[in-house]
Amino acid sequence: MTITENGYGGDRLCRGDKLIIGNGIYGYRGTLEENGKNEAVALTTCSFYDRRGDSWREPVNMPNPLYLRVKANGTALSKENVAYHTESLNTDNGVFSRCTVFKIKDVTVTLKSERFFSQIDYRLLISKVTLSCDKSAEMEIADGIDLDVWDINGPHFTTDSVSYNPLSVYCTTNEGKHLAVTLYEKCPYKPVNADFSNGKVLNFYKVFTKEITLERFAVLYRSDLDKCDDGKMLLNNLKGYDDYYKENLKWWREKWKCAKIEIEDERNSQLALDYSLYQLIIYAPKVSGLSISARGLSGQTYKGAVFWDTEMFMIPFYLKTDKNTAKNLIRYRIDTLDKAKQKAREYGYEGAFYAWESQDGVDACSDFNVTDVFTGRPVRTYFKDKQIHISADIAVSLYQVYKETKDIGILNDGIEVLLECAYFYYTRSYYNHIKKRYELLDVLGPDEYHERVDNNAYTNYMAHETACLAIKGLKELSKKSPERYREISEIYKNIIPKIKKFKEGIYLPKPNDNGLIEQFSGYFKLEDTTPCELKKRLKDPKEYWGGSTGVATATRVIKQADVVMLLCVLKRFPLEVLKANYEFYLPYTEHGSSLSYSAYARLACKLQLKKDAYEWFIKTARTDLDGGGKKYAGSLYIGGTHPAACGGAYLTVTEGFLSDGLNSLPDEINSITVNTQTKKYKLKRN
Amino acid sequence: MTITENGYGGDRLCRGDKLIIGNGIYGYRGTLEENGKNEAVALTTCSFYDRRGDSWREPVNMPNPLYLRVKANGTALSKENVAYHTESLNTDNGVFSRCTVFKIKDVTVTLKSERFFSQIDYRLLISKVTLSCDKSAEMEIADGIDLDVWDINGPHFTTDSVSYNPLSVYCTTNEGKHLAVTLYEKCPYKPVNADFSNGKVLNFYKVFTKEITLERFAVLYRSDLDKCDDGKMLLNNLKGYDDYYKENLKWWREKWKCAKIEIEDERNSQLALDYSLYQLIIYAPKVSGLSISARGLSGQTYKGAVFWDTEMFMIPFYLKTDKNTAKNLIRYRIDTLDKAKQKAREYGYEGAFYAWESQDGVDACSDFNVTDVFTGRPVRTYFKDKQIHISADIAVSLYQVYKETKDIGILNDGIEVLLECAYFYYTRSYYNHIKKRYELLDVLGPDEYHERVDNNAYTNYMAHETACLAIKGLKELSKKSPERYREISEIYKNIIPKIKKFKEGIYLPKPNDNGLIEQFSGYFKLEDTTPCELKKRLKDPKEYWGGSTGVATATRVIKQADVVMLLCVLKRFPLEVLKANYEFYLPYTEHGSSLSYSAYARLACKLQLKKDAYEWFIKTARTDLDGGGKKYAGSLYIGGTHPAACGGAYLTVTEGFLSDGLNSLPDEINSITVNTQTKKYKLKRN
Repeated sequence: MTITENGYGGDRLCRGDKLIIGNGIYGYRGTLEENGKNEAVALTTCSFYDRRGDSWREPVNMPNPLYLRVKANGTALSKENVAYHTESLNTDNGVFSRCTVFKIKDVTVTLKSERFFSQIDYRLLISKVTLSCDKSAEMEIADGIDLDVWDINGPHFTTDSVSYNPLSVYCTTNEGKHLAVTLYEKCPYKPVNADFSNGKVLNFYKVFTKEITLERFAVLYRSDLDKCDDGKMLLNNLKGYDDYYKENLKWWREKWKCAKIEIEDERNSQLALDYSLYQLIIYAPKVSGLSISARGLSGQTYKGAVFWDTEMFMIPFYLKTDKNTAKNLIRYRIDTLDKAKQKAREYGYEGAFYAWESQDGVDACSDFNVTDVFTGRPVRTYFKDKQIHISADIAVSLYQVYKETKDIGILNDGIEVLLECAYFYYTRSYYNHIKKRYELLDVLGPDEYHERVDNNAYTNYMAHETACLAIKGLKELSKKSPERYREISEIYKNIIPKIKKFKEGIYLPKPNDNGLIEQFSGYFKLEDTTPCELKKRLKDPKEYWGGSTGVATATRVIKQADVVMLLCVLKRFPLEVLKANYEFYLPYTEHGSSLSYSAYARLACKLQLKKDAYEWFIKTARTDLDGGGKKYAGSLYIGGTHPAACGGAYLTVTEGFLSDGLNSLPDEINSITVNTQTKKYKLKRN
Repeated sequence: MTITENGYGGDRLCRGDKLIIGNGIYGYRGTLEENGKNEAVALTTCSFYDRRGDSWREPVNMPNPLYLRVKANGTALSKENVAYHTESLNTDNGVFSRCTVFKIKDVTVTLKSERFFSQIDYRLLISKVTLSCDKSAEMEIADGIDLDVWDINGPHFTTDSVSYNPLSVYCTTNEGKHLAVTLYEKCPYKPVNADFSNGKVLNFYKVFTKEITLERFAVLYRSDLDKCDDGKMLLNNLKGYDDYYKENLKWWREKWKCAKIEIEDERNSQLALDYSLYQLIIYAPKVSGLSISARGLSGQTYKGAVFWDTEMFMIPFYLKTDKNTAKNLIRYRIDTLDKAKQKAREYGYEGAFYAWESQDGVDACSDFNVTDVFTGRPVRTYFKDKQIHISADIAVSLYQVYKETKDIGILNDGIEVLLECAYFYYTRSYYNHIKKRYELLDVLGPDEYHERVDNNAYTNYMAHETACLAIKGLKELSKKSPERYREISEIYKNIIPKIKKFKEGIYLPKPNDNGLIEQFSGYFKLEDTTPCELKKRLKDPKEYWGGSTGVATATRVIKQADVVMLLCVLKRFPLEVLKANYEFYLPYTEHGSSLSYSAYARLACKLQLKKDAYEWFIKTARTDLDGGGKKYAGSLYIGGTHPAACGGAYLTVTEGFLSDGLNSLPDEINSITVNTQTKKYKLKRN
């Protein structure tokens, strides 16, 4: 379907997020040709990080090859003379298009453009611009590469060389990596001039005509991925615009065949679902060794780092629709095992402690992630050092990928991940010699408002699951890959017994007489209040709810699904436990993270709470359409799109609405059809 | 010596603290007869607590029996007509006296008074007031009991009955305890009237005379201590003022014989030392089952609760000068063992976890001890639940009292304290199965700025010492008290092996290659800065330095001696370790607690750092003379005197200047003579 935004004066930051295109390696925000860094134009990159000075490391925004500005009869086309404007993104084919009518005193000019990424060759960004006038006019066009890009902590590169015909720039980042952008233009006219000034490398056209079309082919280069291939070959063998366009349509048609969910429902969620899955499609890196950051390719926020979002919320989508991507994504974690082992050692443990915010495996998370609004001082947070469930999230996901792809290569290589993660928990735990059990102390669960808690149920159960999967993985290996099994058994011969001991001994907080699992030791003793009440206690709307002085800290109010998340992920618990905990924790949950609603949605489905389920589904699926989520933390831009919420919407449909648990669809939904790589599932309301 | 304050307009709050008198059960602040609650008059009590509504529990201030106001020829004697004023406290005999000259238009009136507590019968407060005029005048005197007393969280009592001749009030506290004050006056005249109005029960005298003297004998009653004895007998057998005065002088003379320290030094510290020891003398409760609160009897601050101050800083003084008081004080802990066991159980442990702020053994400490200055919100602090070294402080002190008094009764009864405290640490610890040791996690050491740390050196070593003393105590018992030994061995037969295991297994952070003991795991990794630098970072002078957002939290800056305190208390460490840690920690220490300087002073003595030692000695000994320490936390009055600093001054002399470690006195000191109950020590500078 198509997302359309009308009027020239809309919120550029918001539209930039929403109308994004991408091919997993690169993204291009939904901005206009004449926009610059003030309008947050960005040709974004996946896992191509740079650090400038003491600021945090973030992904590089490339030079923008689609810059263009126009004069008609000497007058610039600008917002002052816009008569009509529309722009849209077609989620069926990943094409962004715009149409703007400018009324100059004596001539009306219509600027139409479209752009899309090649999904076959990730280096290629393709665009076409057509300018048509109601009568012939003198058109002056300046177009080319804008090097003066939007950044949070930039600039990230200096320009080493510029060449013309085709326009091309070659740059070096602060970290010494290289990038290049070459813009090949097809145009019936020759440029009258070309120059490099004000950070822009431009061709200048001057034509008296009624209509002119520019086809633009940008070839992108990153030294980390493309190594010695400078793209010349690609440039020399460029096909025509229509060829690429057709190729693109075909690719998307095939893609949607395996991924489309058709829904008929009261709130017309087709667009929300299309857009959610669209995001997951354009963020899927097509190269092994890369993964998806928490805000996809929508910008530099969240440091372009990879969180548990990928494993717990996105991979399930790819497992059903694009197994290769699922495998690539988990390979990213296998590839970064060494970094995880290093992090464990830095904190005094053994095994693998994965990065909370992974930049190629290195933890980009700071010890001070929050700024106190009252003092402006950084607040010590514990996401990096104590949110240890990350390793289990990865282990659980890895085994799922193996199970669903049956790719023994994943297990052959991933077995070490399983063992090292399990071993990490063993070394991270303490033995309670009174209660005769291992405990995981001083951790953060998914709910980040309660720091430094003991025996977070999610963490303990997931660590246990990790140990179970490590042992299970070994057993599986012994059957499917006996040689590797022998090798691994030998390497880990001292560790395996420890993992077994941990598996038997780790404390698993059992449901109490009311079926309730305590989120962490002492949670039930906290103040019984609600997010709504806490809001009234805020002295500043932007203050942080967690930490030692936050309004939520001493209360039961939680940022997001925590025990409920556990009940979603591990299918160990009886229905009455699901019910008790859903009902207990819901009133305390702020849903201050985009990961929260989908967990509640899935559990609501299992509990036949159809009205709730539909409500949480809508919240999840519409996160980015409605522009939900916080855009600023203090003065820091943290906006962008939420692929984990998109994955959550997918999970709600496939694990929720289509689950055996739900006897029939919610009243608000007439029918759902889910296409996957292998099968098609259809459900109609009885 | 005498502390004298001149001028009528001084800081009443400060003088009230400084010129205090007391007898261990009661205290009377250094205020004037005509003062009321606005000038912070208070007849304070030891361990006589009351809670009103939801406020915290605090000691009751009794009705003030020494109220008096005067008119001469119809004009009130008041600050407007003061010509001369002096008031003083004589530390040699515990007598407060004043002299004020009022110039009324036609007459000059001199008001002289003195007051002291009986040290023989704690119920007796005695005062004499003389009014003399330069010529006969009509003197109107109203004097009696002021029931409208100064309180932080009051009022704490209601008046049940009032009687006259003698004036007497009988009151009931919010908690249902009773108190009474009877004022017997000796005066050559009869009152012309008596009434109860404006919260005062007063006699009215009207006399035309040149001089009049009132002798006043206040008999105090507390239902908790005095039970059925209402004081009538005492009242009926009252001796004359001079008899009491002589008795008092004699008592003090005897007292000082065992306690006096004579010093000749550059900064004239005789008064500071006299005053320090004076405080310890007047705060010594003469009844078993009571102890000394952190601010002595100077007011209701710190909830009148007993902290580790008593065991670690005060008991050593009594051991040398007044063994009975030392025994009484440690009996207080023996008597409250049940409460400590209960607290341990409340937190899920076994053994004895003593109250951080003990009110008769019950923990008066709140979970929110600090108010955030930026938001006005209570901040979750962890003094109560995690400052577990308190149990070890008590155990170590108990054994010392036994050792120095050789009172087998202390060990017979105290052995359970030793065992239960040691057992507490065993159950509070976790076993680190990787490093094969017990660890004490998530604690607060003496330095309160770093909350929730692991393996605080002070705590771990002291817990180890507790286990050692429990085992040693058993052995001692087997020799000295075999029957009790058999009994205890039977009761604790399952626990003793655990204590032995703990003793062997507890992690004791060893000095590193530079001789440094890390204050807690990870301390060395904190930011290397100084208290001075941190002061510059404050946004509000009153903001709390600790907690999760305090300026000190992520730095090495500490509130008070911590490792240095350890090195003072346990004499296990070689000189080079003392030296390394003294030098390392000193620049990080704020001395934000009155307990800090004396630890540095003692260590400086051991290290022959004589200049330092003298400096820290002066700081400790002069704490209350100079009015050091914070008077307010936000709007809350937290002033009062600092008996732990007084004890610290004593320790500095006896364990520092007189120790074998110091080859000779600091240059600034010529000679010191220490009188104790048994011996006299004299040291002159070579």
